[in-house]
Amino acid sequence: MSLNPDRFLEDLHRLRSFGASGQGKGVVRPAFTAVEIAARRWLASRMQEAGLKTHLDPVGNLFGLNGEKSLLIGSHSDSQPEGGWLDGALGVVAGLEIARAAKEAGGPPISVVNFQDEEGRFGILTGSDVWTGKISLAEADALTDTDGLTLSVARSRMAGRTREFLPHDMFTGFIEMHIEQGPGMDVSGDQIGVVSDIVGIREVRVTITGRQNHAGTTPMALRQDAFQALSTFNQRINERFSAVATPETVWTLGHAELSPNASSVVPGLARFALQWRDGDRERLIHMEQIMREVAAEVAREQRVKIELGEVGGIEPAAMDSRLKQALRTAAEDLAPGKWLDLPSGALHDAANVSQVMPSAMLFVPSIGGISHAFDEDTKEADLVKGLEVLNQAALSL
Amino acid sequence: MSLNPDRFLEDLHRLRSFGASGQGKGVVRPAFTAVEIAARRWLASRMQEAGLKTHLDPVGNLFGLNGEKSLLIGSHSDSQPEGGWLDGALGVVAGLEIARAAKEAGGPPISVVNFQDEEGRFGILTGSDVWTGKISLAEADALTDTDGLTLSVARSRMAGRTREFLPHDMFTGFIEMHIEQGPGMDVSGDQIGVVSDIVGIREVRVTITGRQNHAGTTPMALRQDAFQALSTFNQRINERFSAVATPETVWTLGHAELSPNASSVVPGLARFALQWRDGDRERLIHMEQIMREVAAEVAREQRVKIELGEVGGIEPAAMDSRLKQALRTAAEDLAPGKWLDLPSGALHDAANVSQVMPSAMLFVPSIGGISHAFDEDTKEADLVKGLEVLNQAALSL
Repeated sequence: MSLNPDRFLEDLHRLRSFGASGQGKGVVRPAFTAVEIAARRWLASRMQEAGLKTHLDPVGNLFGLNGEKSLLIGSHSDSQPEGGWLDGALGVVAGLEIARAAKEAGGPPISVVNFQDEEGRFGILTGSDVWTGKISLAEADALTDTDGLTLSVARSRMAGRTREFLPHDMFTGFIEMHIEQGPGMDVSGDQIGVVSDIVGIREVRVTITGRQNHAGTTPMALRQDAFQALSTFNQRINERFSAVATPETVWTLGHAELSPNASSVVPGLARFALQWRDGDRERLIHMEQIMREVAAEVAREQRVKIELGEVGGIEPAAMDSRLKQALRTAAEDLAPGKWLDLPSGALHDAANVSQVMPSAMLFVPSIGGISHAFDEDTKEADLVKGLEVLNQAALSL
Repeated sequence: MSLNPDRFLEDLHRLRSFGASGQGKGVVRPAFTAVEIAARRWLASRMQEAGLKTHLDPVGNLFGLNGEKSLLIGSHSDSQPEGGWLDGALGVVAGLEIARAAKEAGGPPISVVNFQDEEGRFGILTGSDVWTGKISLAEADALTDTDGLTLSVARSRMAGRTREFLPHDMFTGFIEMHIEQGPGMDVSGDQIGVVSDIVGIREVRVTITGRQNHAGTTPMALRQDAFQALSTFNQRINERFSAVATPETVWTLGHAELSPNASSVVPGLARFALQWRDGDRERLIHMEQIMREVAAEVAREQRVKIELGEVGGIEPAAMDSRLKQALRTAAEDLAPGKWLDLPSGALHDAANVSQVMPSAMLFVPSIGGISHAFDEDTKEADLVKGLEVLNQAALSL
């Protein structure tokens, strides 16, 4: 039986029933939550029904294997705390359908992978970080989510069901299909994006310790207010990063919490995360230096303690020439004039996997450029076009 | 039997066992939590043992009554989310000891009061706000805490145990003893502060709605980042408020939360509270105008929606001349040369009660000026000196 777009769309819609947000097609399915594990188990059953051999590694990456040497296709099924239905899920279900159709048709061996914690509840791209050797399992186990839960405790929920890490040389290459997550293709009207390279990322968690005190009796001049230090840090980062940024450079302060977080108390503690992304490794390093200078300045000026966690991240990654060419050829055949080469501003598991085998990525448009939000969506015709281009490229290799 | 400082200190230490934080003498006893209600019940039993008639009004204010016309002494036993052992508790236990000693000695009728939710889990000074008619019970019932719980639901835990609101004319006046909560007396070496007046306060809860999006694929120029709008709002408030402030003017952004609060997502929503205090009503109003201008500017510049909640607060309040004079006379007798007149930068129930009867306040020092924190403390000798001055003033009226 050949590629079945209806079966692909049915599986994709079924997957969003795990952790459905009840708002649009949104999902709430962070790594290692009960619904995320249920979704992973259901995907394993679909792989088995397709005749693929399932394999769960110690960090929770799920493989559906076809033979001892195969092309690997996939992505991740965990979501942001408030996520869309396609981010990650699309690439996993596309891999499932293409591997299933190839198996049924007696085609070339194709396997599927569903990485764990791509959204970085614990680290950055935790599942592929560990599988590709970027960090050790022991290092990963010590990572915590924003509530202080360790990965070690979280993954103990899978105890007894996991096996060893798979060797990388089982796979001839890796292709990941994904939504663009930005407005570019939606504006240009292209249906297919062939990713040239993936930008690098850096992230640091910061703790500011000031002096908790009464909001009515502590004169302004005597305060050591952790929130004011955070706000000044943020403004100064904006000024200094702007001075070195390109139009593609981005930075975000997306997580922050105060303690005791009461309106009548000068905050004694602020914790937050700062993230920055760029295609140029040297610029990423320069921005880290700027961040360290700003932290030292603000700590001195506002008489607070600023502790910087380890600066984690991932390097900018180029995609494999042969795989890119296969995607371009299939795109021009199936969507003539409606495809383009473009960089990925978002981080993906393919950035990690590219360190251990030839890797490539294929984008389809995001309506309005919206992602990491419940109203993330893509036209069904674009989803199917992406599936067909990826399938034709995979069969041509 | 006359005033018993040991009994007073024992009761004060016993009270801090309700909600003890395990850090120093700190307590975690916000209004209407289980430990707060247990503490209130224990205080009622101590009032009854002293021969006082207990009365719980609909909003949870607890009275220990001596006769149909009496002087009222008290404060509150609820705490901040991370509070000290003396803030409020001191005034309640002092009132208990003085009323008890007067009753035992056949002295003048003195009653004690323990107001509810002085720390503003739901409103500003919720219990005395309602009793003094500043807001109606129906208005108070609609107030919510930062988790969205309504006062209506919270106070339903007392169902069946409450009675009517007491008439104000049962009382000839009100005196509240409290820790200073600032560094002034600790630095000057004074033991007793006679409060001249209480500063006014304004507070507003603000909601900023931007556009939640992916932190890697949304160009900086296209973002509608709710946290960035919050940070700009804060910086601009600092600039504009500084231009109109006196050395006694204070403002605080103590509560803030982002949504979805994840490091890889541009925040779509920010909620926070801004509070400002000053002794001059006109300046409070001027600061509100500035706040509204800044909100409108930032909303326009950063293309976000900024919604301002109702601006609540309390007016600056002068203390009663006759009661102040009684406190000064007793202070000069028992702590000659070691007392002073001073304004209160903190808000207190006495500000509300002063609207319906003659009211006054007495301060004792705070070590290091620390309050609204677990390490809030006062020397025992100062606690006892305050008790003795208040008792002598009360008996002289």
